[in-house]
Amino acid sequence: MLDKVRVVMVETTHPGNIGAAARAMKTMGLADLRLVAPKIYPSAEATARASGAGDILANARVCADLDEALEGATLVVGTSARLRRVPWPCLTPRQLTAQLQHEPEDTRIAVLFGREDRGLTNEELHRCNLHVTVPTNPDYGVLNVASAVQLLAYELRLALVGDEAEPRGARSKRATMPLPEMFWDVEPASNQTVQGFLEHLERLMEDSGFLDPEQPGQVMTRMRRLFLRARPDKMEISILRGTLVALEKRLRGQDSR
Amino acid sequence: MLDKVRVVMVETTHPGNIGAAARAMKTMGLADLRLVAPKIYPSAEATARASGAGDILANARVCADLDEALEGATLVVGTSARLRRVPWPCLTPRQLTAQLQHEPEDTRIAVLFGREDRGLTNEELHRCNLHVTVPTNPDYGVLNVASAVQLLAYELRLALVGDEAEPRGARSKRATMPLPEMFWDVEPASNQTVQGFLEHLERLMEDSGFLDPEQPGQVMTRMRRLFLRARPDKMEISILRGTLVALEKRLRGQDSR
Repeated sequence: MLDKVRVVMVETTHPGNIGAAARAMKTMGLADLRLVAPKIYPSAEATARASGAGDILANARVCADLDEALEGATLVVGTSARLRRVPWPCLTPRQLTAQLQHEPEDTRIAVLFGREDRGLTNEELHRCNLHVTVPTNPDYGVLNVASAVQLLAYELRLALVGDEAEPRGARSKRATMPLPEMFWDVEPASNQTVQGFLEHLERLMEDSGFLDPEQPGQVMTRMRRLFLRARPDKMEISILRGTLVALEKRLRGQDSR
Repeated sequence: MLDKVRVVMVETTHPGNIGAAARAMKTMGLADLRLVAPKIYPSAEATARASGAGDILANARVCADLDEALEGATLVVGTSARLRRVPWPCLTPRQLTAQLQHEPEDTRIAVLFGREDRGLTNEELHRCNLHVTVPTNPDYGVLNVASAVQLLAYELRLALVGDEAEPRGARSKRATMPLPEMFWDVEPASNQTVQGFLEHLERLMEDSGFLDPEQPGQVMTRMRRLFLRARPDKMEISILRGTLVALEKRLRGQDSR
């Protein structure tokens, strides 16, 4: 259903934002970009910021007005940071995508993004069935327009394709046993503390002759994964470090014997 | 809990991405930015792209190495686009934020973002408790690093602050009655078709003397909201248009009388 979604950028000022929006769209599998009266376009800056999404940019349709950009759309969604005088149905991106589950198959969605400085005009917002506002910091909600495209495209992908990271290469569903929330008596160790322990462990494994520094294989990677996953507490690390120190002393004692 | 989250950018090449990341952080209420050996920094481009988030940039700490950047962190999350030889606990952003609900209050989270061209090294990823991969288009998953910061910051905000658009100014919880999914017999009208009807309605309201073109108030805004929210089908619009045409004829007939 991603091919039924188009992105409409209205009177974008900075061509870099158009390129960045094209790239954001492509990372999420959107392809239909329409530009209503962009200030500077085409532009080398747009192409540079599009990176590997040059095809989206090449196929972007420059429209003289909003009518042309909305041609055939049956659900028009306007992005807006402000509340308007007459309140409109206004959703968060997640409420929007929940709503889309109930849309008929043949819905053709257009998502409108306004000017960098002033967003969409009231007239443009009044062409929309719904408004969407991204929840932001109340003290600074000024999302870059390409960032807004990225967030909406991401939410649309999750809703229409699913929340799955690329599954290829997955080897097994086997997971470590998850633990429920529980009372804990000791503070967690910091990452540095665990790092210090792992370096110590590596030295000792080498000193012990178990680990060949010339051919370490994946041994330490697997040890790291184990201990970082386990999230040891300070006491546990301190016990492990104590054990390593004691073992080291024994090894040195043997060497000097 | 947002103040317990820090963003760590490792060996970022383009200063513009640092500025854009600072802005992305601020829009979501994050403030603690650490830069490990950035290529070019400080930089006018970073400042320009930071826009109103100059304070985040000014307070960003430049670190010589990852150890310094991770100081005191108890949960280190590495962002990664690729699957590694030894699979690590790897979550989507949404799985990560679900997981954070079970974290103790004093967790100090660091989220690592790698180089533009190669991401994080294996060694860096092996400092992490968890890896996070944003679900992307399998044919082009090359997220811009500032876009990745934006997406993660957004998910963290939703998880730690809640999925709420700015509530101030909301007047009432009263909503129109929601409709369950149901069989429908006619195709939905396109946005253009509804637009055509609304323009026609406005003309007739003016011709009728009801609507003063010099003092239109919010009348048409409210009509727009009604009809755009209702998502009329083609047949309904055709009936409404027929009615308008008939009324127009009557009005003209009276004029000529």
